[in-house]
Amino acid sequence: MAVTSSSISLEALETLDLDPAFALHRGGKLEVRSTVPVRDADDLALAYTPGVARVCSAIAEEPELAKDYTWISNVVAVVSDGTAVLGLGDIGPAAAMPVMEGKALLFKQFANVDAVPICLDCTNVDALVETVVRLAPSFGGINLEDISAPRCFEIEARLRELLDIPVFHDDQHGTAIVTLAALKNAARLTGRSLGELRVVVAGAGASGIAVSRILLNAGIGDIAVADSKGLIHEGRDGLNPVKEALARDSNRAGLRGSTEQALAGADVFVGLSGSTVSEQAIASMAAGSIVFALSNPTPEVRPEVARKYAHVVATGRSDFPNQINNVLAFPGVFRGALDVRATTITENMKVAAAEALAAVVGDDDLSADCVIPSPFDERVAPAVVAAVSAQARADGVARL
Amino acid sequence: MAVTSSSISLEALETLDLDPAFALHRGGKLEVRSTVPVRDADDLALAYTPGVARVCSAIAEEPELAKDYTWISNVVAVVSDGTAVLGLGDIGPAAAMPVMEGKALLFKQFANVDAVPICLDCTNVDALVETVVRLAPSFGGINLEDISAPRCFEIEARLRELLDIPVFHDDQHGTAIVTLAALKNAARLTGRSLGELRVVVAGAGASGIAVSRILLNAGIGDIAVADSKGLIHEGRDGLNPVKEALARDSNRAGLRGSTEQALAGADVFVGLSGSTVSEQAIASMAAGSIVFALSNPTPEVRPEVARKYAHVVATGRSDFPNQINNVLAFPGVFRGALDVRATTITENMKVAAAEALAAVVGDDDLSADCVIPSPFDERVAPAVVAAVSAQARADGVARL
Repeated sequence: MAVTSSSISLEALETLDLDPAFALHRGGKLEVRSTVPVRDADDLALAYTPGVARVCSAIAEEPELAKDYTWISNVVAVVSDGTAVLGLGDIGPAAAMPVMEGKALLFKQFANVDAVPICLDCTNVDALVETVVRLAPSFGGINLEDISAPRCFEIEARLRELLDIPVFHDDQHGTAIVTLAALKNAARLTGRSLGELRVVVAGAGASGIAVSRILLNAGIGDIAVADSKGLIHEGRDGLNPVKEALARDSNRAGLRGSTEQALAGADVFVGLSGSTVSEQAIASMAAGSIVFALSNPTPEVRPEVARKYAHVVATGRSDFPNQINNVLAFPGVFRGALDVRATTITENMKVAAAEALAAVVGDDDLSADCVIPSPFDERVAPAVVAAVSAQARADGVARL
Repeated sequence: MAVTSSSISLEALETLDLDPAFALHRGGKLEVRSTVPVRDADDLALAYTPGVARVCSAIAEEPELAKDYTWISNVVAVVSDGTAVLGLGDIGPAAAMPVMEGKALLFKQFANVDAVPICLDCTNVDALVETVVRLAPSFGGINLEDISAPRCFEIEARLRELLDIPVFHDDQHGTAIVTLAALKNAARLTGRSLGELRVVVAGAGASGIAVSRILLNAGIGDIAVADSKGLIHEGRDGLNPVKEALARDSNRAGLRGSTEQALAGADVFVGLSGSTVSEQAIASMAAGSIVFALSNPTPEVRPEVARKYAHVVATGRSDFPNQINNVLAFPGVFRGALDVRATTITENMKVAAAEALAAVVGDDDLSADCVIPSPFDERVAPAVVAAVSAQARADGVARL
């Protein structure tokens, strides 16, 4: 192939590196290391030929042994096609790589899960599914990431059906778990049950749909979900199958119109839309309201404005109290699933993770500014791991 | 999915682990680690959101920046479908994993290349090629491994055409580079040029074909190659396209019949067949003969038998002198290519690697029992790296 010379000069890179984020990313953020010594020919003869051949032969005879004698039981593929990266949208696989590397380092840091970033140069649903199926023998789990809706729903559903290892789209379920945990604690703080709460969700992408689903599973009172065309209700024209199913299961009050209209008298607002909500709409909510303005970097409503009316306010940002951060969930969820070699991650396991996460905030610590633990709270991962492993066993999906 | 419980008891594993190779492989041989600190929210804000978004945006605008600000410039996929693993044959992707993990740890150990084992659950040539193309944005190079012939030739050729990163089937070219280096030194030791030597190669699989090709490129006198049906010559029926091309370019003497018949008066034997060659055949070779009996674990002829007639004897084993071991080549070849961001690995770069490897053995060290350095000779990788990088620049395939 012909060489296309790099168009970036060293001077240009040095200028970029004045931004500490660029300086930190220079050369990437990951490495692969050996966990066994290779000091001499004897070591080499065990870790590689001829010793390795005995291990290969044993696995060829009994494939389950791959889980004991290779790293696959501890390694997760962080798979993206780069179509819905952070708030940046469809930026492609190469530009998605820094996020997937970041995800991999968080897996290691918070739960000692090895993770490999895999950014795929294909966006067709069939192609993505078949590619991940072909890769699957090399991994103990698949973390889907930053894949655009509604493709992400079909991709995850088909992979869950085809594979006997955990498949988890973090943008959906990580957000859902942490949001449910925070909402449970906000309800606990204000002395209410989830069944008493009426929720409005702005956004019907990956996270909006998954948050709505987990809240419905957890017994929320009622929930109305809006996309860019307004509230989703039965009979609305042009709904895709995922939204159509949600229309059947949500919005029992039959609300129509905008997010802001639905907020009048609502108990909870969950923003996952990238849009904005007016101060008046927040002011129109019920007394003791709960506002989770989770869009990043710009919340749907400024938290200091929301706090004038709401009892509890959370955002996705680290510079305000109550950060709804997926890192509170995904490392422990996978660690818990891998530890018992779960074949899948069930809805019960997600709810168990949320309950364990909520319970990390004890009654003494619980306050309007502390409904969810810090990502650096060392009790978080062990609590989530234990809950997820136990629930996998209870659900009959554990192999250990 | 239904759970199929593991059929392996802890007791059975403990019995296996009495073999030190199994004990060493328990839990696998690799881990993924962060190269940047994540101690607090400030670190997190640089390595992950919101800081990472700036890096992603820059790459989206200028894709070449992915090579500077992600790990891809240092990471190689070790890709196999498990169809030709060591001497074990078609044992499938799961059973191939310990070899690919071993390869990855050697990449790191010998040349600080990060490598990820990718065992694919597909054997169709089109499927393999398209899968690797989809994976390619995540890697700086592709090391193909243990893929059966003749599929491996087409897969490598198509990937080289489709991708602008190095693609290298180590079973072919690693073996070829190290064999050429050892043969150069054996010729040097015995005061002959390659052009004077008549070679017989037993085996026309991946390594047999590649060794023959590199020897032809290096100006070998004549070379006759045998497969399981005997010597390959023009006009032989039923040759696949790769062997047909080799028939045209080799065996100028027009020999027919068996390997053993061709050995009469030959200067060099290279065994890559898994078969055996009789003592009489070795005895029939020319004076000062060179015998590389490279099949593992059982060489084509016992080295102590070959030494009764041959001046230089090499094997693939670590327990005899002159081990022809691919680890002498592939780490340095990829390191050298990655260092200059080569778009491909040219034939010249392979020959340069062989020459650099041969030159590590100085005139004072050169002897019948030392025509190739030890894998643990620390001069090897730097010499190969420098030669490969320089040749990439000379060939106009370097981007740096």
